[in-house]
Amino acid sequence: MVSGENINKDLSACMVIFGGTGDLTHRKLMPALYNLVHDGLLPERFAVVSVGRREKSQEQYRNEVYNSLNQYSRNKIDENHWAKLRELIYYFQFDFTEMDGYLKLKDFLEELDKKAHTGGNRVFYLAVAPEYFETIVQGIHIGRLAENEGAWSRLVIEKPFGKDLATARKLNNKLLEVFTENNIYRIDHYLGKEMIQNIMVLRFCNFIFESLWSNKFIDNIQISLTEKHGVGTRGGYYENSGAMRDMVQNHIIQILSLVAMEPPVNLKTDSIRTEKLKVIQAIEEFTPELLRDNVVFGQYGRGVVDGVPVPGYREEEKVSPNSMTETFVALKLHINNLRWAGTPFYIRTGKRLGVWSAEIVVQFKSLPKILYFKDMYIQEPNLLVIRIQPSVGVFFQFNTKDFSTHNDIVTTKMDSSHISLNQGNTPEAYERLLYDILRGDATLFSRWDEVEASWMFADRIIEYREQKKLNFPNYEAGTMGPVKAFELLARDGRQWWNI
Amino acid sequence: MVSGENINKDLSACMVIFGGTGDLTHRKLMPALYNLVHDGLLPERFAVVSVGRREKSQEQYRNEVYNSLNQYSRNKIDENHWAKLRELIYYFQFDFTEMDGYLKLKDFLEELDKKAHTGGNRVFYLAVAPEYFETIVQGIHIGRLAENEGAWSRLVIEKPFGKDLATARKLNNKLLEVFTENNIYRIDHYLGKEMIQNIMVLRFCNFIFESLWSNKFIDNIQISLTEKHGVGTRGGYYENSGAMRDMVQNHIIQILSLVAMEPPVNLKTDSIRTEKLKVIQAIEEFTPELLRDNVVFGQYGRGVVDGVPVPGYREEEKVSPNSMTETFVALKLHINNLRWAGTPFYIRTGKRLGVWSAEIVVQFKSLPKILYFKDMYIQEPNLLVIRIQPSVGVFFQFNTKDFSTHNDIVTTKMDSSHISLNQGNTPEAYERLLYDILRGDATLFSRWDEVEASWMFADRIIEYREQKKLNFPNYEAGTMGPVKAFELLARDGRQWWNI
Repeated sequence: MVSGENINKDLSACMVIFGGTGDLTHRKLMPALYNLVHDGLLPERFAVVSVGRREKSQEQYRNEVYNSLNQYSRNKIDENHWAKLRELIYYFQFDFTEMDGYLKLKDFLEELDKKAHTGGNRVFYLAVAPEYFETIVQGIHIGRLAENEGAWSRLVIEKPFGKDLATARKLNNKLLEVFTENNIYRIDHYLGKEMIQNIMVLRFCNFIFESLWSNKFIDNIQISLTEKHGVGTRGGYYENSGAMRDMVQNHIIQILSLVAMEPPVNLKTDSIRTEKLKVIQAIEEFTPELLRDNVVFGQYGRGVVDGVPVPGYREEEKVSPNSMTETFVALKLHINNLRWAGTPFYIRTGKRLGVWSAEIVVQFKSLPKILYFKDMYIQEPNLLVIRIQPSVGVFFQFNTKDFSTHNDIVTTKMDSSHISLNQGNTPEAYERLLYDILRGDATLFSRWDEVEASWMFADRIIEYREQKKLNFPNYEAGTMGPVKAFELLARDGRQWWNI
Repeated sequence: MVSGENINKDLSACMVIFGGTGDLTHRKLMPALYNLVHDGLLPERFAVVSVGRREKSQEQYRNEVYNSLNQYSRNKIDENHWAKLRELIYYFQFDFTEMDGYLKLKDFLEELDKKAHTGGNRVFYLAVAPEYFETIVQGIHIGRLAENEGAWSRLVIEKPFGKDLATARKLNNKLLEVFTENNIYRIDHYLGKEMIQNIMVLRFCNFIFESLWSNKFIDNIQISLTEKHGVGTRGGYYENSGAMRDMVQNHIIQILSLVAMEPPVNLKTDSIRTEKLKVIQAIEEFTPELLRDNVVFGQYGRGVVDGVPVPGYREEEKVSPNSMTETFVALKLHINNLRWAGTPFYIRTGKRLGVWSAEIVVQFKSLPKILYFKDMYIQEPNLLVIRIQPSVGVFFQFNTKDFSTHNDIVTTKMDSSHISLNQGNTPEAYERLLYDILRGDATLFSRWDEVEASWMFADRIIEYREQKKLNFPNYEAGTMGPVKAFELLARDGRQWWNI
């Protein structure tokens, strides 16, 4: 994503990670920082301060990071790069629920600013459970950590951003007491994936896709994020989340808005966000009839995934044996604008499905049943598939002569998925996101009004689930979800594509 | 090509090859017949009678064919298949300029009909130099070879069909004295190539190509048939032909008409031919100004091809040292109908060029210089490339994010050229054409009015070349032709694509 505005040349900053001993820091943030060193993108004047409750020495913490890097980094650890990064890492011990600590932290950061020449610029990264978001922001406020004359302070906040519209609003108002909207970076790590960013490039850099991108040429669009794994140890979190909050409200709505948005006036962050917002606003409201007909919930029972028997959701750790949480959702929705009216969007996401995959399938309209279609029963429409996971690439399905016979026509695929191999490793999403935070490019983060509109959309569906009597579990682990999810398309004479 | 009409289930026939000891018979026709046996497509009741002037025994001729098969067939010769074909091959000696022989041939064929149960059906294949076409047809007439009650007789005629409109008309009238138009099969072996037939499949079996196939979306179309080899031993023929007669009047006009034609009403031979004809008729007439501006002739001088020094055209065997024959031609033309007005077609063909290739490049329009194009200087338009030679496949060029950097956009290609490998060998053009002749499908052959219209088009350009003072040679062997051929596109802000 290229955005002209707000980008600073001087990336000097001190990054404070709340939750510095946690999983996210070790698995994602530190490897991302290492990769930035590896790629020569980490600022010269930089420091990272990991805040944690536990007592440990600088040395001890740095060694822990080193071990994590060896375990999680995509690059083999080069000792020179590590030596460089190691010097920039600090551990600062305090319990972030105790407000006194923020005052000490302020002193520490000011010392560090002098030492590392970071100029007072601050990134506060909340790598903690969501119940602490407000507490920490409160602490930053009390400690006046974000108030440095002539310097910037940015807040990075992980999902979930609220659990519904009301809590999201409350949280947001809290953040706004300390940070301005344009300094709040709401992370959606899906947007850090290069192929998600590629949606805009594919659409706006290719005349033929640009020309075909509407209800005049497209029959339907499918967004499918399917996982093989279950909730694992995250049952406690997931019980209060479910597929709607975990995947739809954020990742899928973001992907949908990138796929469906009008071309922005320019590539500036706010121009893009404005167009994305318009898509969410144009989603046809789910009336009671549409909720009944176009929404399918699922929860997995026992089954077999990759040959291994797995428990049902209700048998998972920290999950209620009577849980009514959805682990699967399929939706049919319409975007009621001139570009998309009449072209349905089908969405599905779920856990413990038969395939691990994230892809966008654009199905073009079918030709009339004349000429070759008359005698030869070709059924396959043209498809453009943007694959995000597990491989990265663009596929195009088309019909061609079968060169092995004299007369038949076959469906074949053109495939650019090799580009991910030819062009080096796809940078980890977090590397990209940290880099953008440092240079102040918020394009890949969600603006408040987008989050707000997403919650309005999601809340209605979640409320419906909560009121509805559902017969869970209703799909076997290792299948592709409940039968109704297939009927949702079959009823329209369509099918889910697994390309 | 699939055509419903005229296809007979009973392919029984006796095929008479005039020029049975010649190159075409040995290199193409016999291997094609062998491949038909190999593919199980040769009729059960079938015989082939090779006519030659030289004395030789049945045995001797069959052995010669066997040697040729081993040399030229794409399939390794299986002795069982050969044993089957061998029994069907007969040699009949007579000088086809002597009319008596045709009477004897008639007796021979009638005997054979009984023996081989070929029912009187005949294919007369003129695999001889064009000056003998009329003589042989006269002989067939006198010998009443093509008049069998209740049976069909087809004439197969190789190019060149005339050397201009007048001679083509004269020849055609001669043929019509003996054969009806729908029994005359004018061979254009280019149309036997599967990828040429694939043009219609790509266009009419794919919604997105069908939707984009017009001046609204296409900037220009290039048809490029370039050869590395020179005239070799065929200087005598080529002196009277040149690139216009050798390549443009037939192959290129046929390809052009398949690329540009309106969708036919159905897939019947005459429906398709009618649409092809309309394309040729819609080519904008070459006024003196257009001849001056939009036509480039070339003739190769000495040069280096693949590291080997090669002589100039005027130094080739049987070529005049002052020859004014063009070995290269480039044209810009317009098709003046609603679909194509404003979208130029660029054509080039020549010998002794730097690349051996036959391809159709469809260049789509460019996007306005906004968004990504503004900052990032992406210049590459979307291209659809239909490659005929040396490999067979479809390429699509598009722009995508460069996954190796964080921001760049790169042009990449999707490629289906593997389909020719996955799906077995492409059948040789002649195999396909012989099969179609036997079952009476004339779709891949040119109808008289197409030939006539092509000559009208070509004659005007050839006349212009004959009157024009040209400074030959004007390109070095091993280059891509005269500078003016590049200027022809550069002047329009375009370029030849070598994909």
